[in-house]
Amino acid sequence: MDKRVRVLIDCNDAKGLVYKISKVFYDRDLNIENNREFVDKEEGKFFMRTVVTGEFEIEELREALVAVIPKDANLKVIEPKRKKIVILATKESHALGDILVRHEAGELDAQIEAVIANHNTLEHFVRRFDIPFFCVSADGMSREEHEEHIMDLINQHEFDLIVLAKYMRILTPNFVKAYPKQIINIHHSFLPAFIGANPYKQAYERGVKIIGATAHFVTDDLDEGPIIAQDVIPVNHRFEWRDMQKAGRDVEKIVLSRALNYVLNDRVFVYGNKTIVF
Amino acid sequence: MDKRVRVLIDCNDAKGLVYKISKVFYDRDLNIENNREFVDKEEGKFFMRTVVTGEFEIEELREALVAVIPKDANLKVIEPKRKKIVILATKESHALGDILVRHEAGELDAQIEAVIANHNTLEHFVRRFDIPFFCVSADGMSREEHEEHIMDLINQHEFDLIVLAKYMRILTPNFVKAYPKQIINIHHSFLPAFIGANPYKQAYERGVKIIGATAHFVTDDLDEGPIIAQDVIPVNHRFEWRDMQKAGRDVEKIVLSRALNYVLNDRVFVYGNKTIVF
Amino acid sequence: MDKRVRVLIDCNDAKGLVYKISKVFYDRDLNIENNREFVDKEEGKFFMRTVVTGEFEIEELREALVAVIPKDANLKVIEPKRKKIVILATKESHALGDILVRHEAGELDAQIEAVIANHNTLEHFVRRFDIPFFCVSADGMSREEHEEHIMDLINQHEFDLIVLAKYMRILTPNFVKAYPKQIINIHHSFLPAFIGANPYKQAYERGVKIIGATAHFVTDDLDEGPIIAQDVIPVNHRFEWRDMQKAGRDVEKIVLSRALNYVLNDRVFVYGNKTIVF
Amino acid sequence: MDKRVRVLIDCNDAKGLVYKISKVFYDRDLNIENNREFVDKEEGKFFMRTVVTGEFEIEELREALVAVIPKDANLKVIEPKRKKIVILATKESHALGDILVRHEAGELDAQIEAVIANHNTLEHFVRRFDIPFFCVSADGMSREEHEEHIMDLINQHEFDLIVLAKYMRILTPNFVKAYPKQIINIHHSFLPAFIGANPYKQAYERGVKIIGATAHFVTDDLDEGPIIAQDVIPVNHRFEWRDMQKAGRDVEKIVLSRALNYVLNDRVFVYGNKTIVF
Repeated sequence: MDKRVRVLIDCNDAKGLVYKISKVFYDRDLNIENNREFVDKEEGKFFMRTVVTGEFEIEELREALVAVIPKDANLKVIEPKRKKIVILATKESHALGDILVRHEAGELDAQIEAVIANHNTLEHFVRRFDIPFFCVSADGMSREEHEEHIMDLINQHEFDLIVLAKYMRILTPNFVKAYPKQIINIHHSFLPAFIGANPYKQAYERGVKIIGATAHFVTDDLDEGPIIAQDVIPVNHRFEWRDMQKAGRDVEKIVLSRALNYVLNDRVFVYGNKTIVF
Repeated sequence: MDKRVRVLIDCNDAKGLVYKISKVFYDRDLNIENNREFVDKEEGKFFMRTVVTGEFEIEELREALVAVIPKDANLKVIEPKRKKIVILATKESHALGDILVRHEAGELDAQIEAVIANHNTLEHFVRRFDIPFFCVSADGMSREEHEEHIMDLINQHEFDLIVLAKYMRILTPNFVKAYPKQIINIHHSFLPAFIGANPYKQAYERGVKIIGATAHFVTDDLDEGPIIAQDVIPVNHRFEWRDMQKAGRDVEKIVLSRALNYVLNDRVFVYGNKTIVF
Repeated sequence: MDKRVRVLIDCNDAKGLVYKISKVFYDRDLNIENNREFVDKEEGKFFMRTVVTGEFEIEELREALVAVIPKDANLKVIEPKRKKIVILATKESHALGDILVRHEAGELDAQIEAVIANHNTLEHFVRRFDIPFFCVSADGMSREEHEEHIMDLINQHEFDLIVLAKYMRILTPNFVKAYPKQIINIHHSFLPAFIGANPYKQAYERGVKIIGATAHFVTDDLDEGPIIAQDVIPVNHRFEWRDMQKAGRDVEKIVLSRALNYVLNDRVFVYGNKTIVF
Repeated sequence: MDKRVRVLIDCNDAKGLVYKISKVFYDRDLNIENNREFVDKEEGKFFMRTVVTGEFEIEELREALVAVIPKDANLKVIEPKRKKIVILATKESHALGDILVRHEAGELDAQIEAVIANHNTLEHFVRRFDIPFFCVSADGMSREEHEEHIMDLINQHEFDLIVLAKYMRILTPNFVKAYPKQIINIHHSFLPAFIGANPYKQAYERGVKIIGATAHFVTDDLDEGPIIAQDVIPVNHRFEWRDMQKAGRDVEKIVLSRALNYVLNDRVFVYGNKTIVF
């Protein structure tokens, strides 16, 4: 019976890598459905994502690959399957709703395990989709206590990814470290950037002509980390700051879903503070 | 004989402004070719730009308008004519070249009086267009001395606008104050923003997926001030930082020329740290 | 008690229109919240949309306006209220889902009265939102018979607008004439255009680099009529035609919702085969 | 001494191609600087573009590659060098000017051999850049006679590419056949498309909200052929058709230069009526 796997390799660049890896596929008579490579010359790093099909044993293939790539290489041989995701949200439904509708339509290669929020505003909305909803109010709790409750809830589920769909709480380093390269966030972006409270109001006061959104992995703090996808929409002086916020939602939801889709399809490598998206 | 003027009014908002102003036009049997108004409700400010044609005396029209608008209103009654511009540049020709080609094609309602640069790299290029070129090297000069020389040169020309077409020197507050709302600059923009040396390299290291450009009036320092126009282009991990810089040039030149065109046509109001672009 | 109305006027252009109309507002001491005008010089047409607030009788205001505008002018004095809409769909949920999520979030100034489809694929999905769903299969019916059933169903509801959210049936002139300027449609757009069956496949075979979407009023046939909004997304040779179709969905849904929002807010004038969107 | 070549291969897809080709590189101890592959599964076609460096004989490498790829494969082993181009123009300077400025700045890997036009409008402009300019007026000539003169002039130059920078004459099949895959054209694009005279006027009358540009190889007639690059800009009802035309120029010139750059760097494969752009 034919199998299909995604092979992901990243390592220090060296001569002959493509040859040696493709020889492994050739020797097993595998069919290459899709193949992308990239060498970051500045960093001397090699990246490869190949989809192969054929008759083979996954373990045997893995071992054959390990034998030809550098010792410190990262290798993944992945059988495509629905990844499990947990979504964190607060009160806004646009990014969450976009994911729920795509999920319902079978457009996302994902299984939503739960939606966890720090308010119950979205409970009714989420339940419409028969998705488990949990509310953990932060009232009367320290940041650490609240986060502990959230982490407990997350950890009760099986999951590959945590999606922050406009989750408006700042995460502690403790949280971020617990889920390395597993947390995806979406946040508004401006040219130039505005730091501090109510960036939309600041953007309005500066009269920006463009509003953007950035989807990224969460590393240190909420709004930093390797960028997966970005996009923008034009605005003008007729937009009050609430209109800018509203306009921003359209681009936020599309960019988050696009980034999520890349990650679900194992198309993203993370290294340093950046990504390769094949 | 028919005249055509642009009437620009900005003032605190008040009831009846449109009525009173349009009555002035109506009483003189003027034709309204184009009319745009905007009220910034948050600031309580009224903006109006009207193009009127007909038989009238400009001074008489101005006085009639002054009589109906608030005392602290800004009023301009402008006969369209080619504005005079002085361009400052350094070594890169993309933004400058775009302006020179449009100028030659008669596409810009402007007369280029001079190009002034702090290097002579562009001399040959500018002379091709029969435009006076002046080089003021900063070698061996303090920032203030160099700027004084530049200002002397600028002031020897008649000009309405100073266009910084990738002029890579930081301007002192002294320079900026000397030409209020008269200096237009273009600079790269990133989502998120990168501060410090070589932002393209920083953008590359962060793996941005979009590169932007912002054209703005110069107020305090080089890269701040009311935004006139912005745009972006997509990039990806295959772009080395020099490729990003190169890609950025395309959007920089188009955005600067677009902004310049708005200003030449008196379509831009500046207030606070923002603009209205009609 | 203060009222707020939207005043929409379109007529042949004439001198003094702005003056006469603004005098009506001034005489009643009304506050102008928002005012936009446009003159199509080629056609000699005047368009104006003003939002006024104050103490006044709507009928009295209407009569006062009628007295100063040309006899053949179109005048609407509209009290903002939730418009009622009926949605037609087929099997795809992206455009419909985007509207349902916005509706649920209170983002659309609309009340969805019903979703009518020619397949029952979306029934379960629509019922999640407690919106009435009706399926009228076309099996065994002529186009005319089927459409008659659809029209019967539509006409049993109160509605201001009919939204075709990827309704994949061709409408007869009879249907279109029954709902003038009341039907909004979204359809894919390509540069260049592709006519005939499976345009996505044709676009793929031509190797297009951009996919677009156009939202428009339906006049003669399904894919013509005055354009309300358009947007595009980039694609490349790695997109198979089904990927192009998938990518197209993101832009389709955003553009349809944007156009719908314009129409719900009475921001769109239709004349000839085009629109003014204020 | 190290050499650098671009290896371009396209052929029917077969198992082991990547392995066999990369083995050729590996056996010669070559360094792979850049490598991109693509398989069009629908067509069963394989495409590969690799930049290799090292010590090798070009002819020997070519023969080694021929030995491992299918007999009907297309193989190019290209030493990067400035390609020679001949530009055809008419009266508009925007696309031409953009190429001339980039050429002057050393931004294009090209040598402009001549500009040939059917009017002398641009003569003065082109001579500014010390580029040979030839005018071949079509006055009093049949289309065939005129084209023969143009072809004579072209053929007196060495060239790799012919760039139609807003050359407003229709080319005969005879001309097109003479320069297969060697002619690049830019033309406006609309959503939807408008056929016939003055498409900008038609686009205006339809009220389009977006204007695009398509750069493509010329095959059968002027505006068809494999697409290399496309882009768009937003417009609105305030744009008269001449404004649309003017706005269109900005996107036309950027898209043409982008496409030209791809072709100069041997990044474009043409097959069927489409392209792969690596």
